[in-house]
Amino acid sequence: MSQEIIQQLRNDAKEWILEAGELIKESMNQPFAVDTKKDRKDLVTEVDRRSEQFFIDKISEKYPDHKVLGEEGMGEEVTSLDGTVWIIDPIDGTLNFVHQQRFFAISIGIYIDGVGEVGFIYDVMADDLYEGVRHQGAYKNGTQLDPIDPQKTLEESMIGLNNTWVIPNRRLDEKKMQELSRNVKGTRSYGSASLEFAYIADGTLDAYITMRLSPWDIAAGMIIVSEVGGVTTRVDGSEIGMLSGNTVVCANQAIHQELLTYIIEK
Amino acid sequence: MSQEIIQQLRNDAKEWILEAGELIKESMNQPFAVDTKKDRKDLVTEVDRRSEQFFIDKISEKYPDHKVLGEEGMGEEVTSLDGTVWIIDPIDGTLNFVHQQRFFAISIGIYIDGVGEVGFIYDVMADDLYEGVRHQGAYKNGTQLDPIDPQKTLEESMIGLNNTWVIPNRRLDEKKMQELSRNVKGTRSYGSASLEFAYIADGTLDAYITMRLSPWDIAAGMIIVSEVGGVTTRVDGSEIGMLSGNTVVCANQAIHQELLTYIIEK
Repeated sequence: MSQEIIQQLRNDAKEWILEAGELIKESMNQPFAVDTKKDRKDLVTEVDRRSEQFFIDKISEKYPDHKVLGEEGMGEEVTSLDGTVWIIDPIDGTLNFVHQQRFFAISIGIYIDGVGEVGFIYDVMADDLYEGVRHQGAYKNGTQLDPIDPQKTLEESMIGLNNTWVIPNRRLDEKKMQELSRNVKGTRSYGSASLEFAYIADGTLDAYITMRLSPWDIAAGMIIVSEVGGVTTRVDGSEIGMLSGNTVVCANQAIHQELLTYIIEK
Repeated sequence: MSQEIIQQLRNDAKEWILEAGELIKESMNQPFAVDTKKDRKDLVTEVDRRSEQFFIDKISEKYPDHKVLGEEGMGEEVTSLDGTVWIIDPIDGTLNFVHQQRFFAISIGIYIDGVGEVGFIYDVMADDLYEGVRHQGAYKNGTQLDPIDPQKTLEESMIGLNNTWVIPNRRLDEKKMQELSRNVKGTRSYGSASLEFAYIADGTLDAYITMRLSPWDIAAGMIIVSEVGGVTTRVDGSEIGMLSGNTVVCANQAIHQELLTYIIEK
């Protein structure tokens, strides 16, 4: 893939993600704050769909042979990663969007023949734009991010880990997760997978664990984190797939390895 | 207390908290990012102390008869709430300050004869200033905050609750807390008490529970939350004291009442 094409994709993705952010912000100034729960639900669905449609229109106009894999499933069905696939979450952290009106993000990962080339995560309300380009580094608001500390240990780590996985649950041995919780410096939970990846990239978090993510939740994050030296796999250590749901553990190599020993699937 | 005096305290507190925020930001541009763990610890202690000393100098110069109760304990010993007491946390969320370089805040509560009159919480890195003045409302960056929804139920709530309190621990019946975790819309954890109070005030969270807070962690937050209709007590329902450590549960009245039934101290 020529660098010119990558650069073009990068420019377009950046322009469109910022534009989509503006659309979402505008939609939030509508009746949103005052309406009922049902209206809110309808609104988020509408904003989600409108934002995804915006990307589909832009992409299909400029790149008619590219595919779009999105949360709302409004593009054509994507059954293989051949060619160029834009993997998009128009609003990651929907619950935050509805309940908090902040801590949500737009996530775009561009994969070419299955390889993640360009990733963007845009924290709309904080106006923070995270970017990763394969072999060209990761950036936050245009400033290159330092590699994450490869020496940092689990004991020194701040881990993104929701309560869900330390109380009795269907997926994980909660006793081991409780032990993990006690053995780290602290746990945090922000409720947006893409932001939690972005936070690993910029050092806010050292690791992130969750049990149910779709490709669009992680497509951009994996690229960005990989550019600062982070490793992302399923919780059994196997490779993440972009055509199915995933479990996720992401951290520097040493912490990642150690985390795998705590995460015991039922 | 005359409104003129309150207005003067409000102006001064606002000016000084923003100035202290600048000092902290400047200190973060020092070797911080690259130094060792021990250096970091020393730095945070130094920044904490310098920030507290800054407030003590300002307050004692302008209001020589006021008292200062601060985390670093650099003011005179405060054994009663008679007169005017500034209750200050120069950096709330120290762990976040050290590990994340964000999600920390400066907190100032001004109490006159034990009554909270003026509260400020400043999220330094996000540059968000929360303010509450007794009977005069709460504000975020100068915009008055709406009252929190008195109709909202526990089931619809986003709760600030760290893993610590849902895994086996010395203070609470974790089984009941796990039940609570399951019965709410979602749990989040940000690691700064004053920010979690601020988040209740602006609707990011609907409730916050924790078991170990000092007066300076909550002095401002209680005033601000109270101005939007929130209730704060110890987890046994009793009144918060400003001269001792506290357990804390904060929410709208209905959710607060319901939360008390889940929080069983050991």
